[in-house]
Amino acid sequence: MKLYDMKMAPNPRRVRVFLAEKGIDVELVAVDIGKREHKSDDYIANINNMGQVPTLELDDGSHISESMAICRYFEEIQPDPPLFGRDPVEKAQVEMWSRRVEFNISGCVAAGFRHTSDFFKELEDQVPAWGELNKSKLPERFAWLDQALTDREFIAGDNYSVADITAMIGVDFARVVGMKVSDEWPNLARWHGVVSARPSAKA
Amino acid sequence: MKLYDMKMAPNPRRVRVFLAEKGIDVELVAVDIGKREHKSDDYIANINNMGQVPTLELDDGSHISESMAICRYFEEIQPDPPLFGRDPVEKAQVEMWSRRVEFNISGCVAAGFRHTSDFFKELEDQVPAWGELNKSKLPERFAWLDQALTDREFIAGDNYSVADITAMIGVDFARVVGMKVSDEWPNLARWHGVVSARPSAKA
Repeated sequence: MKLYDMKMAPNPRRVRVFLAEKGIDVELVAVDIGKREHKSDDYIANINNMGQVPTLELDDGSHISESMAICRYFEEIQPDPPLFGRDPVEKAQVEMWSRRVEFNISGCVAAGFRHTSDFFKELEDQVPAWGELNKSKLPERFAWLDQALTDREFIAGDNYSVADITAMIGVDFARVVGMKVSDEWPNLARWHGVVSARPSAKA
Repeated sequence: MKLYDMKMAPNPRRVRVFLAEKGIDVELVAVDIGKREHKSDDYIANINNMGQVPTLELDDGSHISESMAICRYFEEIQPDPPLFGRDPVEKAQVEMWSRRVEFNISGCVAAGFRHTSDFFKELEDQVPAWGELNKSKLPERFAWLDQALTDREFIAGDNYSVADITAMIGVDFARVVGMKVSDEWPNLARWHGVVSARPSAKA
């Protein structure tokens, strides 16, 4: 098994943090997005025909992409510690919060970055007004997540889950559009301190 | 248990089709988006503070939103028939394809509709150029899904799954931006005929 990985991008980090929480070692293969290695003929033909990173290669040579799909595969083959919830309600809450954070924070950061930065000029059909609108919404989205964290320790409830991984990576990646967690959002700052102190955060 | 529902919108339909496939009856409460009932003080305060439909109310009065989270809850309490995959690899493939279809088709249709239609003029900060870009990409996305269906019966493999529900609803909803499945995409048309003929498609 090997994981096609890219150090700076948020989605590969999601899988690396997830694997660190599970204590699973997987061989990493570095893909250089700057050199467009993920759009090379070889990568498209043999690894991921949509040119995405991360991609997991199974021992039979088949591939799984989408970071959440890769995480779910590892949850299934090694359920402990559970990171997708422990019972039907918690599983639904983890899915709900992971998606809410993806749409409201990670998606907003990605759109803000992809549609305004020089880095994506040739990789994306940029609509700068769309990027700016997304960037402008981030402070209210940080306030929304701060509010959600008023009465609980983790994003989806009392237990650390993949929703915390999604949120930590979305919030950290917001640096690319100039947003940083601060005491302006005290619950968010408290939670961010807790999740960032876990050894997995360095993965 | 009751489900806050809206007849015309794609996400509530996703849950209704899922429930029909499972053979589960849930009381439906109609929410009128045109009248902005989902943004009313009562709905925001008591049902979903993000003003979303669908929302599932459990018997203890708590709520779950996000259509995929609601579907996952029902998969957990009633595993048969399995709609999220049967083993670790299939579960990952269902998640991968459901997300690919969400990003590449459903998200594209939603952005095209929300950012160009009069219906969303007051509900959305419209960026018409973003809407038009998304609409312009739909033919190539239909071709992409047609290609993916060359060698298999269903979206994620040999078994009908929630990825087929996601895809059917995304493809059907594309009518709002003038796109329709046709023989131009023969594999897509074959698959669409099969999934649309299931009794659940009418839900």
